[in-house]
Amino acid sequence: MNATPDDLVRPHIMSIVVDNEPGVLARVIGLFSGRGYNIDSLTVSEIQHEMHVSRITLVTSGTEQVVQQIKAQLEKLVPVHRVVNLTLTNNYVQREVALVKVKGRGEPRIEAMRIATAFEAKLIDATTESLIFELTGRSTKVEQFIEVMRPLGLINVCRTGVAALSRGPDKI
Amino acid sequence: MNATPDDLVRPHIMSIVVDNEPGVLARVIGLFSGRGYNIDSLTVSEIQHEMHVSRITLVTSGTEQVVQQIKAQLEKLVPVHRVVNLTLTNNYVQREVALVKVKGRGEPRIEAMRIATAFEAKLIDATTESLIFELTGRSTKVEQFIEVMRPLGLINVCRTGVAALSRGPDKI
Repeated sequence: MNATPDDLVRPHIMSIVVDNEPGVLARVIGLFSGRGYNIDSLTVSEIQHEMHVSRITLVTSGTEQVVQQIKAQLEKLVPVHRVVNLTLTNNYVQREVALVKVKGRGEPRIEAMRIATAFEAKLIDATTESLIFELTGRSTKVEQFIEVMRPLGLINVCRTGVAALSRGPDKI
Repeated sequence: MNATPDDLVRPHIMSIVVDNEPGVLARVIGLFSGRGYNIDSLTVSEIQHEMHVSRITLVTSGTEQVVQQIKAQLEKLVPVHRVVNLTLTNNYVQREVALVKVKGRGEPRIEAMRIATAFEAKLIDATTESLIFELTGRSTKVEQFIEVMRPLGLINVCRTGVAALSRGPDKI
């Protein structure tokens, strides 16, 4: 039997608008860790300073049914104003930044610079022994870049996690 | 009397290496909300998948004395391996991405595109009524861009928060 779309475990990007008050983030995260839901990525930003409202962009992997449950539970939390599953809208942009530090002398160093050019990554730090690249893109592109850099002497990576907005003029 | 450096409230970027296990993020955030410390920005990423270790990059504003207290308390949490205050090292790179959605027809639209070019922001979505720009940079640059866009018809902003690495070849 083939898997139906309902069985498909895939990342869902949730945009969660909350009151910007102490403890809200801890409660949202507590809901995930308490019930064993995973968090692939999490970012927070103020959206309307004057109204004390923040947006949490959270990526979680699960079937549509599980993600629907998560959404329903988030909506029950008092400081949560609105939850939108952007993945299901199929009409959004998503970006993250990775800082990728690579060892590098000689040929591997030159190869790392070549690959960075192909990915449109920017060189933002260079010593005789190391390079740091900045890459902005969708998570899949960032992951490809890291995998290609790994055998060339990856020292460390710092990623921001995903920010996302609906396409077009609406406020989501 | 002039303020001494000890009195200066400013953002500090903390790089916190933790075990990648359920509940760690909730405990770190709980430490901040429980004691009234603020979180300006927070990002999480896996650093070594095979060792189940994650890095939390957290920006908090305070005097050096307060930030020193926060660091000491973080170090007491069991799943925390290492805490580095990158701001005090004075030798790091930091980046975040903002997605900035602006209303725009006619002259304000053209002006928004001009400003985006000056900031090296990328246009990643356009309808007849709206534009979305992607801007990667230091937080101060991102904030300047948002302030310049505000009077042109800012609809919404989604920021990732800060990712940061030490300059040079070490693993921090």
